[in-house]
Amino acid sequence: MADSGAAVTSPATGPAAAVQRARDGDVRALGRLLTWVENGAPELRQVLAAAAPLTGRARVLGLTGAPGVGKSTLSGALVAAYRQRGLRVGVLAVDPSSPFTGGALLGDRVRMQQHATDPDVFIRSMASRGQLGGLSRATPQALRVLDAAGFDVILVETVGVGQAEVAVASLADSTLVIVAPGLGDAIQAAKAGILEIGDLFVVNKSDQPGAQEAVRDLRTMIAMAQRAPGDWKPPIVRTVAASGAGLDDLTGQLDSHWAWLDDTGEGERRRLARAREEISEIALAELRRRLGGLPGDARLDELARQVAAGELDPYAAADELISGPQ
Amino acid sequence: MADSGAAVTSPATGPAAAVQRARDGDVRALGRLLTWVENGAPELRQVLAAAAPLTGRARVLGLTGAPGVGKSTLSGALVAAYRQRGLRVGVLAVDPSSPFTGGALLGDRVRMQQHATDPDVFIRSMASRGQLGGLSRATPQALRVLDAAGFDVILVETVGVGQAEVAVASLADSTLVIVAPGLGDAIQAAKAGILEIGDLFVVNKSDQPGAQEAVRDLRTMIAMAQRAPGDWKPPIVRTVAASGAGLDDLTGQLDSHWAWLDDTGEGERRRLARAREEISEIALAELRRRLGGLPGDARLDELARQVAAGELDPYAAADELISGPQ
Repeated sequence: MADSGAAVTSPATGPAAAVQRARDGDVRALGRLLTWVENGAPELRQVLAAAAPLTGRARVLGLTGAPGVGKSTLSGALVAAYRQRGLRVGVLAVDPSSPFTGGALLGDRVRMQQHATDPDVFIRSMASRGQLGGLSRATPQALRVLDAAGFDVILVETVGVGQAEVAVASLADSTLVIVAPGLGDAIQAAKAGILEIGDLFVVNKSDQPGAQEAVRDLRTMIAMAQRAPGDWKPPIVRTVAASGAGLDDLTGQLDSHWAWLDDTGEGERRRLARAREEISEIALAELRRRLGGLPGDARLDELARQVAAGELDPYAAADELISGPQ
Repeated sequence: MADSGAAVTSPATGPAAAVQRARDGDVRALGRLLTWVENGAPELRQVLAAAAPLTGRARVLGLTGAPGVGKSTLSGALVAAYRQRGLRVGVLAVDPSSPFTGGALLGDRVRMQQHATDPDVFIRSMASRGQLGGLSRATPQALRVLDAAGFDVILVETVGVGQAEVAVASLADSTLVIVAPGLGDAIQAAKAGILEIGDLFVVNKSDQPGAQEAVRDLRTMIAMAQRAPGDWKPPIVRTVAASGAGLDDLTGQLDSHWAWLDDTGEGERRRLARAREEISEIALAELRRRLGGLPGDARLDELARQVAAGELDPYAAADELISGPQ
């Protein structure tokens, strides 16, 4: 597609062209694509249509764990390790929460500065802008864009420990659950919801007191999980991300996990589950739009008033909402 | 409605009768209602229709905070305080996570044992049974049932810190964010997503070292939050739930918050937002059902295959899913 210097809406500068530019290494084009993703812009349809035939090659690596375990330092170390292999690496720092965590993500970026001038590393923080569920739409689309742009490995880093992390983990080929010794309730927090999503467990800062206990606790909990023959048994890797210790072990275990995903068809199964989820999310968003179920919508407001007053139950209200005048 | 000893489907033993029985203090009837809620049973429609005119009186109090801060002990202390006022108290322990946390909830129940024989206290643990989003449907319905059953105060206790907690907090009239000193990243965890949902902040175990620092950190963070004139300024209360210290202060602050909710209309605004959310959730679940968007659905599977293979983009697939043959 030749650059003809045409108007902003021409094919040469439109969404499809931006996808091609991003694939050719144009960082500004990639940034624009991700802004469209974040804002749910109308250009997204064309972007994803243009991206579709270019996707399916990237390995997606989810990093999750409580604040303070060193997720960002570990991300930085993994970026360095994959760059040494000559791979292009994308990093999405997903913040499912509030303006209050702006500081934390800023800190993350600073720690990533060693890669700031490397054209084959792309780092982006994504916030939900106060919109619960906003990230469940935007994150898979951002992965799709980075995949189409030719990144070989994409790290998705989440802040916190909760349902959002479980959701993001479901997008990854491999999910790393990271804990650190001495962080009071790190293991207990890891237990609460993210233990069974871990494909690999990392005890980071493992030069600090309590590392052996953290490994032992994780081993006990992994042993407790029900596992069929042939299932992947999550390894526990000790790292000191700040010095790079344990990183070779970690990338080696990730290689094994990726080989296992390919050999067993589990990788394909996860990709299909992801696509199903993505299609359903978009279809539901479209139906929600048709429903007029936006805050401030007069019909829903009136039904809510009746439910709050006890005049109507929520099922009857939902029926009226669906079947009422469009 | 007289008990005629009729068949199981008769009005006297059906869902509507169970609501009336629960209101009359029949604990087994209440338990059955909540099992229907948990399982999404077909009886729910009739239950909620019968409950509707009886709801709108209960105060809902959300308790959230990282594992180890003493949420359950504090719940127990609050139950005792409200029982002293002669109020009927319901407790929902909501576990958005995994089989691994079964132990924690069992522990919670043990700590609640002092109230086990009190007919005016009802305690129930609710799990999502591995179904992400399951609790977002079940929790408001459980609140509705407890409200209709005549409980004056309902405590909703969540495990963990994350999006699920934010969602549950949105159901409460007042949300308590609980931290404890000496729990490494308690405050940092509190920052990540739940700070702006707190109507009251509790530093529990405040007889332990570090309590003053925790109060100071919270005060700084609360001061940073943008607040319009007339907005509620979240107080910070120090408690030692195990001994009951600080409980009078806490219930006093809760009374102030409830008065503020009533006086400013914010309480009504929250009730309406809750009803809107509830109606939308049910309507979307119904649409999702009509969509056939269940895992294993052949049409969605084929679309997912095409998206995973790069033959189709997810928007085009969603369009086909919505408009395709039913």
